[in-house]
Amino acid sequence: MHCGPSMTSSDASEPPSPEDVKAAAQRLRGYAVRTPLLESPLLNDHLGGRLLVKAETLQRTGSFKFRGAFNRLAQLTPSAREQGVVAYSSGNHAQGVAAAAQILHIPALIVMPADAPAAKIAGTHAYGAEVAFYDRRADDREAIAEALARERGATLVPPFDDPRIIAGQGTTGLELAKQAEEAEARLDDILVPCSGGGLSAGIAVALADSVPTVRVSVVEPAGFDDAARSLAAGERLPVNPGGTSICDALMAPRIGALTFAALSRHRAGAVAVDDAATKRAVRTAFETFRLVCEPSGAIALAAVLEGAVPVSGRTVAVVASGGNVDAEVFAGLIAG
Amino acid sequence: MHCGPSMTSSDASEPPSPEDVKAAAQRLRGYAVRTPLLESPLLNDHLGGRLLVKAETLQRTGSFKFRGAFNRLAQLTPSAREQGVVAYSSGNHAQGVAAAAQILHIPALIVMPADAPAAKIAGTHAYGAEVAFYDRRADDREAIAEALARERGATLVPPFDDPRIIAGQGTTGLELAKQAEEAEARLDDILVPCSGGGLSAGIAVALADSVPTVRVSVVEPAGFDDAARSLAAGERLPVNPGGTSICDALMAPRIGALTFAALSRHRAGAVAVDDAATKRAVRTAFETFRLVCEPSGAIALAAVLEGAVPVSGRTVAVVASGGNVDAEVFAGLIAG
Repeated sequence: MHCGPSMTSSDASEPPSPEDVKAAAQRLRGYAVRTPLLESPLLNDHLGGRLLVKAETLQRTGSFKFRGAFNRLAQLTPSAREQGVVAYSSGNHAQGVAAAAQILHIPALIVMPADAPAAKIAGTHAYGAEVAFYDRRADDREAIAEALARERGATLVPPFDDPRIIAGQGTTGLELAKQAEEAEARLDDILVPCSGGGLSAGIAVALADSVPTVRVSVVEPAGFDDAARSLAAGERLPVNPGGTSICDALMAPRIGALTFAALSRHRAGAVAVDDAATKRAVRTAFETFRLVCEPSGAIALAAVLEGAVPVSGRTVAVVASGGNVDAEVFAGLIAG
Repeated sequence: MHCGPSMTSSDASEPPSPEDVKAAAQRLRGYAVRTPLLESPLLNDHLGGRLLVKAETLQRTGSFKFRGAFNRLAQLTPSAREQGVVAYSSGNHAQGVAAAAQILHIPALIVMPADAPAAKIAGTHAYGAEVAFYDRRADDREAIAEALARERGATLVPPFDDPRIIAGQGTTGLELAKQAEEAEARLDDILVPCSGGGLSAGIAVALADSVPTVRVSVVEPAGFDDAARSLAAGERLPVNPGGTSICDALMAPRIGALTFAALSRHRAGAVAVDDAATKRAVRTAFETFRLVCEPSGAIALAAVLEGAVPVSGRTVAVVASGGNVDAEVFAGLIAG
């Protein structure tokens, strides 16, 4: 491991730097999709401002998670690559790691909840990964994954609390800022779905220098607002027990230490959204932007449509973070 | 009207030139979305080659039609702009013309079938256009639109048989070729949904010089294969009466004169696809690419998935041309 002040960018106990995010963007070139930044003149008229939607639903594997996973795995040493990787995930990080591992010829084992959406399990298998299931209500997925990694001498690829993962997710923000500039938009707010905070922290870091006036806010499902409470309290607090939500990708038990540090440092805002609003946003994403969003992927759009941040006379971007939703579930959401 | 050999590019009796398509791309800059060219490594593995999907479902108004409409309307004289425009359309051209007219502050009246998808009618209204309905089984929509245009002194904006419309649609091909190059793909085939032939003719013209080895093929619903029969016969033949299809956007009674000339000159191929295959492709577009395609928009993908052109060891692009589909219909298609 590197250490010392000149090497903070490789220090696993610190969030990444803006330079780390730029380096990640270089690594991802030719592998990640440059997803479009969409807007609807009609919806803009209705809102009285500009709403920009970064369509990470169109990313390789159907969510932004490929970015962080590829950036992490591409930096493994040759011997670590041979030993393989282990990850735990409700499905999007699973597919991101599996796809990155496949490209880099690294064996991958993914620990997933037995009740993950079928589309996510099928995708993970299809990218050639081995899958082990756990019971989301009874087992400690982190402990299971750690034990499996130890057993195999494999590298554990955490879903969010790793500077290289955060830097990879942050490339979403670099692209978003560039595309906003191309669209002659001056960003006021960026709203980002939040579970462990990898995407929101990465975006906050990515834009801290280049777009210092923009405010990044995390969006969580009501009942899973640990990031909001943590940011308010100035310390990491766990999710309150007993909550339920249709946002299967946003159920991390608490925000990461590095992601919390980055979000605190950059004074991130926080919004909570209930499932009814998220369902309406899935339908709006379909009708207005022709996007397939999983519920978790539509929650930032939901926050804006619910009026959580003002759009009138302003420019607000949201990340549509994932689109891995079973056909029957999606059919129910848009037809409802 | 201009005439003479140096002015063919402005001659309404000739297809556009590659330069006209480039000029259209300039006009569209900042107005049209640069839609992504997507591919799925998993589907590629399955097919043994590369399949690239140009996602015009994400275009402004939800289909490629905005491109041609904007390119046409942007070239109207100031006095013609004041007099307004009239168009007839099953819904996608309607929205394209309405949106372009709104941007350019031109009054627009659109003649639409009374049984057009609700999403298309609502979209056309929302872009500020006036809508007049006709009965698709009894009325001659072209005659109705011509009479209304004459009455108002307005310009009739034909759906496909106009060099400026064709040039606008052709910008899809310019982008596609550039993006394929960025993805280090050498295109062998491009398959394009075909009704009147504006999009396919535009793409054929756009790529004739720059990618002369690529073959453009039109894809039509079975029973509406007039373009295929016309290309085989060397003359324009009408659609056979009595056909039905779920592809509501691909029901033009016959291919255009200019589009036919361009497609003949560039030796376009032709493929017909039945509705069952198109339905499967709508579901594949959803599951594999997280795209919302209307049936007409998925027909080129359907042709490839049905094996109409070989993909093994080759690179094939398809245009996903539109995504304006009612929620209930789409829910039924993907859940089925």
